[in-house]
Amino acid sequence: MNLDFKYTSDGLIPAIVREVSSPGRVLMMGWMNRQSLAKTLETGLLHYWSRSRHQLWLKGETSGNTQRLIRWFTDCDRDTLLFEVEQSSGACHQGYRSCFFQELDFSGEPKPVIEQRLFDPAKVYAK
Amino acid sequence: MNLDFKYTSDGLIPAIVREVSSPGRVLMMGWMNRQSLAKTLETGLLHYWSRSRHQLWLKGETSGNTQRLIRWFTDCDRDTLLFEVEQSSGACHQGYRSCFFQELDFSGEPKPVIEQRLFDPAKVYAK
Repeated sequence: MNLDFKYTSDGLIPAIVREVSSPGRVLMMGWMNRQSLAKTLETGLLHYWSRSRHQLWLKGETSGNTQRLIRWFTDCDRDTLLFEVEQSSGACHQGYRSCFFQELDFSGEPKPVIEQRLFDPAKVYAK
Repeated sequence: MNLDFKYTSDGLIPAIVREVSSPGRVLMMGWMNRQSLAKTLETGLLHYWSRSRHQLWLKGETSGNTQRLIRWFTDCDRDTLLFEVEQSSGACHQGYRSCFFQELDFSGEPKPVIEQRLFDPAKVYAK
């Protein structure tokens, strides 16, 4: 398996995740190391490296909201990856489809959130 | 201006850039600091922080291929930003629309590049 990318000094690489279906929203950004990347390619389900918990993390392990890998790309510098996925329910731990649900105005203040939650985080993560 | 995000220990935050027009491709990822972020919001043109040259960098300064800011979002953790832009010509210094022109197969090997270059880097960056 060719996983020769430019990792940070911590052995990590940013992974941008986009939904494969229209309108192709950006869902989240996570961090991967070689292990989580290999696991992602082997299983077809996105795995990350948790920088806070220092462990391999299958997206959807708790919530059930997994991400199925459809296509992936490297950027020209080989220091960032882009994954196109089929997202089950919402990617965001706050219950939204995308972690980027909060639009800001040009002074950095939050605009009203128009997106509806897909699930109740209190119920999903209480399990 | 409210720029209170979670920056890295180097004072940086990742900026994912997506084209605003259909199909809304992810164009690149760059790094910003407070200064480049403020400059982006003030001018409406995306500015980054060059980690190699240690300086503020207006995207398109050399190539002319600027990115006009349309909308922007923070993620739920306030540690990643998403910008929707109007991209002039190509975002990639190799002449492609997107830096993510290289698709990989599930063993990490490059697939044939089907995208056409929008400009010749040798000519654009020789100026």
